Amino acid sequence: MATKDDIIEFLTAEFPQNKCVIEDVGNRSATVRHKIGIDELRPGGTVSGPVLMTVADVALYVAILGEIGIVPLAVTTSLTIHFLRKPSPDKDIIGACKIMKLGKSLAVGEVSLYSEGSKDPVAHATGAYFLPPA
Amino acid sequence: MATKDDIIEFLTAEFPQNKCVIEDVGNRSATVRHKIGIDELRPGGTVSGPVLMTVADVALYVAILGEIGIVPLAVTTSLTIHFLRKPSPDKDIIGACKIMKLGKSLAVGEVSLYSEGSKDPVAHATGAYFLPPA
Amino acid sequence: MATKDDIIEFLTAEFPQNKCVIEDVGNRSATVRHKIGIDELRPGGTVSGPVLMTVADVALYVAILGEIGIVPLAVTTSLTIHFLRKPSPDKDIIGACKIMKLGKSLAVGEVSLYSEGSKDPVAHATGAYFLPPA
Amino acid sequence: MATKDDIIEFLTAEFPQNKCVIEDVGNRSATVRHKIGIDELRPGGTVSGPVLMTVADVALYVAILGEIGIVPLAVTTSLTIHFLRKPSPDKDIIGACKIMKLGKSLAVGEVSLYSEGSKDPVAHATGAYFLPPA
Repeated sequence: MATKDDIIEFLTAEFPQNKCVIEDVGNRSATVRHKIGIDELRPGGTVSGPVLMTVADVALYVAILGEIGIVPLAVTTSLTIHFLRKPSPDKDIIGACKIMKLGKSLAVGEVSLYSEGSKDPVAHATGAYFLPPA
Repeated sequence: MATKDDIIEFLTAEFPQNKCVIEDVGNRSATVRHKIGIDELRPGGTVSGPVLMTVADVALYVAILGEIGIVPLAVTTSLTIHFLRKPSPDKDIIGACKIMKLGKSLAVGEVSLYSEGSKDPVAHATGAYFLPPA
Repeated sequence: MATKDDIIEFLTAEFPQNKCVIEDVGNRSATVRHKIGIDELRPGGTVSGPVLMTVADVALYVAILGEIGIVPLAVTTSLTIHFLRKPSPDKDIIGACKIMKLGKSLAVGEVSLYSEGSKDPVAHATGAYFLPPA
Repeated sequence: MATKDDIIEFLTAEFPQNKCVIEDVGNRSATVRHKIGIDELRPGGTVSGPVLMTVADVALYVAILGEIGIVPLAVTTSLTIHFLRKPSPDKDIIGACKIMKLGKSLAVGEVSLYSEGSKDPVAHATGAYFLPPA
């Protein structure tokens, strides 16, 4: 298992382009935050889909690292996202992941994505990660 | 319907953060290209998942605009991506979209994603767009 | 809105081949049950995937009818299912659906599927329904 | 690798409830057929979603067995289906699968589903199978 600090150190070193901040990790879950500015918007004054997909993918990755430790080569095998509501253009996006299955070779989780301060999710994702042999 | 030039002009004006270049559009299909550099890589020397998801989403959007004209508020309702092979860290990503259904309210398409020069796809996506009433 | 009895009556009349029993419906949710016998099993002594997909689809349909009333022509537009654990060959499958979005044209929900008596889901599905204009 | 006859023999013995007929298998692909009668219909005079999901799952399973041989415990890990058009109530459903990736642990394929005689697919599915260690 990896702590929040372990994962922050790892992401800083290995994913310098990552813009998600880890809020919490542990107990088969993780919460991450992505600041929203002009770069993250699309026509209609809303957050672009790829930003939401990125937050979902990172939340899932962080939750898995929290369980299996720092395994850089854990890789997404599939991800499905449903866009549910128009996100606020001026609120951070929060991604809350719960792992639903943690097997030897595959982990599967779901991520609810919110505009900060709102109860209703703006999107929902499920994804599977392949875990390389130890 | 919108031409390749119409869509390039629209994306330049409205999605200045977009990094995908349109290669072809028409006949219910579109091909887009995304340059790959250090910003697009992840540990293991491969292209990050969110870059591939972005290319899939843009290819689908461009293919749809090519059929229905410039409708900025067409929005993705869902997207599923399977990651199939490790992309090359030094080749552009090419996304080739075919529309499978173009209804009044919903369009559905599939996108095959390649590292340029390779025959085997690195990922495959399907997605649905909701089309606002005219 | 439709009550549990309304929906049972409708399904009995219109879907005589349906094998799912409605346990609960309301508050943007539904729970359905499918008996498991030899017809539902596959090699390895487990419940076949299509049975789980069927329960997911029916749970979603029932939850939506509970909100919008008896609208036979509401149709699934997409469904994604992840298989998480081997179901028991001798327990009923329970599908618990929550609607995540109920728009004018689209409803999206998630369904957790269980072998009765187990806390850990055997599968998880998300799906979108298109709602015809009133 | 398994031949068409090997797979027919296996399915007959182990999946007696299977209603899909194998038309072709080989070269990382498979075609299967499902007869459509009153049991397969839903209100609106169309083929029910679960029947289409079943055909997709079987087509994928058969295509994989054609490559890896008779491995009963290959199991679906995820399946996504998009429903594209109303199937004919009086035509067989044909499912045509192509394998997109065949790894040591995971196989991923896509399936186009047709009402026999029609060029436009009624549905499209992608799915992943986990392959147990040899």
